[in-house]
Amino acid sequence: MAEKTLNDLFLDTLKDIYFAEKQILKALPKMARASQSEEGKAAFLQHREETQGQIERLEQVFELLGKPARGKTCEAILGIIAEGEEIIEEFKGSPALDAGLISSAQAVEHYEIARYGTLKAWATQLGMKEAVVLLDATLQEEVATDEKLTQLGEGSANKKGTRKSA
Amino acid sequence: MAEKTLNDLFLDTLKDIYFAEKQILKALPKMARASQSEEGKAAFLQHREETQGQIERLEQVFELLGKPARGKTCEAILGIIAEGEEIIEEFKGSPALDAGLISSAQAVEHYEIARYGTLKAWATQLGMKEAVVLLDATLQEEVATDEKLTQLGEGSANKKGTRKSA
Repeated sequence: MAEKTLNDLFLDTLKDIYFAEKQILKALPKMARASQSEEGKAAFLQHREETQGQIERLEQVFELLGKPARGKTCEAILGIIAEGEEIIEEFKGSPALDAGLISSAQAVEHYEIARYGTLKAWATQLGMKEAVVLLDATLQEEVATDEKLTQLGEGSANKKGTRKSA
Repeated sequence: MAEKTLNDLFLDTLKDIYFAEKQILKALPKMARASQSEEGKAAFLQHREETQGQIERLEQVFELLGKPARGKTCEAILGIIAEGEEIIEEFKGSPALDAGLISSAQAVEHYEIARYGTLKAWATQLGMKEAVVLLDATLQEEVATDEKLTQLGEGSANKKGTRKSA
């Protein structure tokens, strides 16, 4: 058996985030439905569109590698999404629900930021220039989404949660 | 049953990260043992010390709330740590192992950055000034650790993974 290399690690992590993105694509409409604010609903649906584009970029990276686009179970994203579903269940009807949804979405974003940051660094080291461009485009989108969620949290959703709890 | 508020969500999330920190405390020595480079070993052990301090800060926040410090199973961190263990297993003896360890540690850091960022925002909205200071201190440490890991990855570990794979 050949010694495993950074190329193998890159492919493994690509499969991990490909699986994760597909799970996120399924979770976002549920989050949009659960959201109490129109702003929240719109943000989750817009991010769903973006996620579709990110999946396509990953498929292009698989193609550059000459490998079939295949996911590999990612326990991390399953755990993060499960925690989000628990919040939807436990905070249904509560004014704090939207704050909880935003926090779950930010946990998702940070997982993606970590993975795309790593993949971009490895692609650079492996001299995969086209992959670097694709991975960086998604990384920048994830960072922007995280910032937007922070603003959304500081705006309506969280304040509503506090107001009613006073 | 009283309507759930942002205070409840804050306490739930505090329990989540308290559980997570304790799991991280257990995982770090394993990562240090697995690391091939002295720099990596030192970084993981130093972060273990830091994690101990972060747990103590969380205990102070529980005290400010007048609640016992108790964890709540965090599926997200269990998934992230399980993926790290899988890398240790699959890349044992490979020159890419350290790059994999660093990527796992960065996934852990980003989970913490998301949670502490959220908790700090909520503590601000709830007017808990002392908690804000404690949570922000840890948040800054996590951001610094993530940056340090990026540098470590760009330095020895990843390059070694590439060299042998060429």
